[in-house]
Amino acid sequence: MQTLRHFTHLKDFSPAEFLALADAARALKKTSPKGAPLAGKSLAFCFMNPSLRTQVSCEVAAASLGGHPITLSLGAGGGGTWGMESVEGSVMDGAAAEHLKEAVPVLGRFCAALGLRSFPAGKSWDEDKAEPALTAFRKYSTVPVINLESASGHPCQALADLVTIQERMKPRGKNFLLTWAPHVKALPMAVPNSAVEMASMAGMNVTIARPEGYDLDPEVMKRVADNCARQGGTLNVTDDVTAAYDGRHVVYAKSWGSLRNYGKPPSADADFRAKWMVTPAKMKRTDSALFMHCLPVRRNVVVADAVLDGPWSVVIDQAENRLHAAKAVLLHLLTQTSKTAAPRRTIR
Amino acid sequence: MQTLRHFTHLKDFSPAEFLALADAARALKKTSPKGAPLAGKSLAFCFMNPSLRTQVSCEVAAASLGGHPITLSLGAGGGGTWGMESVEGSVMDGAAAEHLKEAVPVLGRFCAALGLRSFPAGKSWDEDKAEPALTAFRKYSTVPVINLESASGHPCQALADLVTIQERMKPRGKNFLLTWAPHVKALPMAVPNSAVEMASMAGMNVTIARPEGYDLDPEVMKRVADNCARQGGTLNVTDDVTAAYDGRHVVYAKSWGSLRNYGKPPSADADFRAKWMVTPAKMKRTDSALFMHCLPVRRNVVVADAVLDGPWSVVIDQAENRLHAAKAVLLHLLTQTSKTAAPRRTIR
Amino acid sequence: MQTLRHFTHLKDFSPAEFLALADAARALKKTSPKGAPLAGKSLAFCFMNPSLRTQVSCEVAAASLGGHPITLSLGAGGGGTWGMESVEGSVMDGAAAEHLKEAVPVLGRFCAALGLRSFPAGKSWDEDKAEPALTAFRKYSTVPVINLESASGHPCQALADLVTIQERMKPRGKNFLLTWAPHVKALPMAVPNSAVEMASMAGMNVTIARPEGYDLDPEVMKRVADNCARQGGTLNVTDDVTAAYDGRHVVYAKSWGSLRNYGKPPSADADFRAKWMVTPAKMKRTDSALFMHCLPVRRNVVVADAVLDGPWSVVIDQAENRLHAAKAVLLHLLTQTSKTAAPRRTIR
Repeated sequence: MQTLRHFTHLKDFSPAEFLALADAARALKKTSPKGAPLAGKSLAFCFMNPSLRTQVSCEVAAASLGGHPITLSLGAGGGGTWGMESVEGSVMDGAAAEHLKEAVPVLGRFCAALGLRSFPAGKSWDEDKAEPALTAFRKYSTVPVINLESASGHPCQALADLVTIQERMKPRGKNFLLTWAPHVKALPMAVPNSAVEMASMAGMNVTIARPEGYDLDPEVMKRVADNCARQGGTLNVTDDVTAAYDGRHVVYAKSWGSLRNYGKPPSADADFRAKWMVTPAKMKRTDSALFMHCLPVRRNVVVADAVLDGPWSVVIDQAENRLHAAKAVLLHLLTQTSKTAAPRRTIR
Repeated sequence: MQTLRHFTHLKDFSPAEFLALADAARALKKTSPKGAPLAGKSLAFCFMNPSLRTQVSCEVAAASLGGHPITLSLGAGGGGTWGMESVEGSVMDGAAAEHLKEAVPVLGRFCAALGLRSFPAGKSWDEDKAEPALTAFRKYSTVPVINLESASGHPCQALADLVTIQERMKPRGKNFLLTWAPHVKALPMAVPNSAVEMASMAGMNVTIARPEGYDLDPEVMKRVADNCARQGGTLNVTDDVTAAYDGRHVVYAKSWGSLRNYGKPPSADADFRAKWMVTPAKMKRTDSALFMHCLPVRRNVVVADAVLDGPWSVVIDQAENRLHAAKAVLLHLLTQTSKTAAPRRTIR
Repeated sequence: MQTLRHFTHLKDFSPAEFLALADAARALKKTSPKGAPLAGKSLAFCFMNPSLRTQVSCEVAAASLGGHPITLSLGAGGGGTWGMESVEGSVMDGAAAEHLKEAVPVLGRFCAALGLRSFPAGKSWDEDKAEPALTAFRKYSTVPVINLESASGHPCQALADLVTIQERMKPRGKNFLLTWAPHVKALPMAVPNSAVEMASMAGMNVTIARPEGYDLDPEVMKRVADNCARQGGTLNVTDDVTAAYDGRHVVYAKSWGSLRNYGKPPSADADFRAKWMVTPAKMKRTDSALFMHCLPVRRNVVVADAVLDGPWSVVIDQAENRLHAAKAVLLHLLTQTSKTAAPRRTIR
């Protein structure tokens, strides 16, 4: 019996499989597939948190392939649904009116694949790391599940990010910087986790610049280190946010919350913010690096206008590639018969 | 002149007509219709209350038939519309910014059919029973109206329920139990009303188990009694929630509010809840009955996990059949030329 | 290089171009275009404020032309997105999580056209008149932008209004009354502005009846006066709300807020309301005028039931024409190659 394929965590994919998906996305950007490969199929994209790029890229991807996208606000009340329970054995006499043990298989009877965005609650990393909603989707679904950003990862973003880099360079051996950035909130770690997993799978030399107390989850770091070892890249972590830019080919900026002070917003101190914000002065230390960010981005907090509006920025292309990545993921999950992602290709 | 057809209340259909719709739904589950019978048609599904199965089953049904579904949050503000007035002659200087006397015919100019979900307000049964919004839709619409659950009924659910039973037995002469169940809120009576109307139209022997004070509306009971008399079934009402399970072929569980203490939640007393919750012990008294519930269901309040996860439960199939029922209703309303529902067939 | 075409302000169109669009809308009402001219195109309709007719007419128009409509709640949180910034150079440490400088070009990578509804904030007319969100959409978009009602205008409504008049009379030389009407809120001036701009472009004699202090913006009045001068119509402003109806062929009712007491609701005095409400007695002074309103309308505050339900009212046709106007606008923006709106035609 064939295992049900999902697209929820990068760790489920070998570097070769993930790079093959990126190849497929780049090919789909150039040429639309013939016919309507998703004709007759409905897709439910479920959001427990707000979205712009993810919703629209998924809807357009599905529609462009002939499918019918449905965007659902799960657990939002009002125009959305009631609260959803994920714990097995619960006595449901509280706020949640439905268990995912029913909701997920029901959606699977109506739809050919299910997407889920579910952010961390921000109270306990242990609880958030268990990803109760996404885990329930994987457990109860009879159709493929797509992670549209969970507590630990954002694989659709990582796929679009890889495509964006590949359009401009062969990533293997190039220097990738993930830099922590200031923010007004304690943001999820999904994007930084997936960014360094992606870069390490692509054979890049990974540097992470972050303040003390802002280390990524050790399990993620372990996977990144393993990837780097296997793919021939290096891995460094530093708090020297200036030197970290030297000689970089890609600068990926993102704010995230501290695991040490979980759920607490970072310091709003002006000097601290100035130190960590991405600026033209920092970018000029790089080897004409690409500036990348998953968006939405707070201008002049995370990054200076002059960087976003300058020659380094590829953030709009990066967002566009979410569409082509979504098409590749949908076709991978819904139209291929082999268990592997796609024909294995030489890693670029 | 032909009367405009709606699908709003089971009482508008003869048993033969309703059973013919179920035949159509079962046929549509096996074979999709050729072509795109709803091509060029848009359908507006209007929700004044939250939904999951209803929204998605209607959207997928419409899309799978080639139509374009539009889901609207009516009266919700924010991402939805302003409040809607339904009383004729109102001086509209309050919260409602639009009268259904305009909104409904306007939607009818854009769309080939209109669905409406409008729950009771829970203050006065007399007011709720008048179903002001649904009545206004029927009165003002120039296109077919589908009831997506009103104060008094949920006919799409009843159609799916009948299909679910028919897939497993010939309902005529079989024993159907509607059992009241505990809950944290005073829920609408739409589903229990429609469930017993459906069972009585299908020729089943109907038993209703409910606590004192939880009788269904007398008009509904009169119709059910008449149906039973005509179709050869029996009708019993009891508060002996244990004996009621004996020899049943179908157990349909649902909580609903009391007409005597209208809008008040039922007792949260642990013994009372334990007495009325559906359990494996109760199910074992049946003749290997199907366990049915319209969902969403509160686990371990309405029904024990071991029933929902056990051999009795058909709730996921029941939910899937909402899709096929919706397809049958849409085709019935939008593609047939005769005034009757479908060719009359022998009642199963 | 060809200038990007938008449909955001009537002042961007010559009378001939605007009338040609109305011709196209009337033709599309009679005959659907062959094939699916928007096949493969997604359209994003972005709402910062609630909508009924606009959302549904845009969705149905796009779908009927083979396109894929996406309705987005921008800045609404919950089922929608986070807040949006529009000011250049902002330090985004407040509520807005994304700048339109990113959001708009990103949507333009996914979609072939973008619609925006953004009402005035109601605090300062100078700020509202600058239309920060719509201006940002025009500035940052790489695809056509459609104004779905801004602070200063509602051109899709005006196009539908012109079609509605043309279906019943040749507008040139006919008498058009825009009458202010009572309301519980200080409403935007978009519709009255566009209504008189439309009437003046169509060569009608324009009268505006309004209480002292409710004059429209001088820039709009200047354009209307210029249009009247060029098209051979007359322009009058009066507070004699009774005589204003004499001999009119069209009565267009609308409430709007005062520029003098900006953002303050109009008087709720019963006599004042009675004086300005549209009544059968007033309508009987007209030359069997059409009664027009953009909807939603507050019955018995803006207009008496007997007018809305009487022989004068064309409000439902007017709403339906939003659909045909939307189709004409989409085809104009997305399928024509010349810079002008359409072949110039003799003005009707």
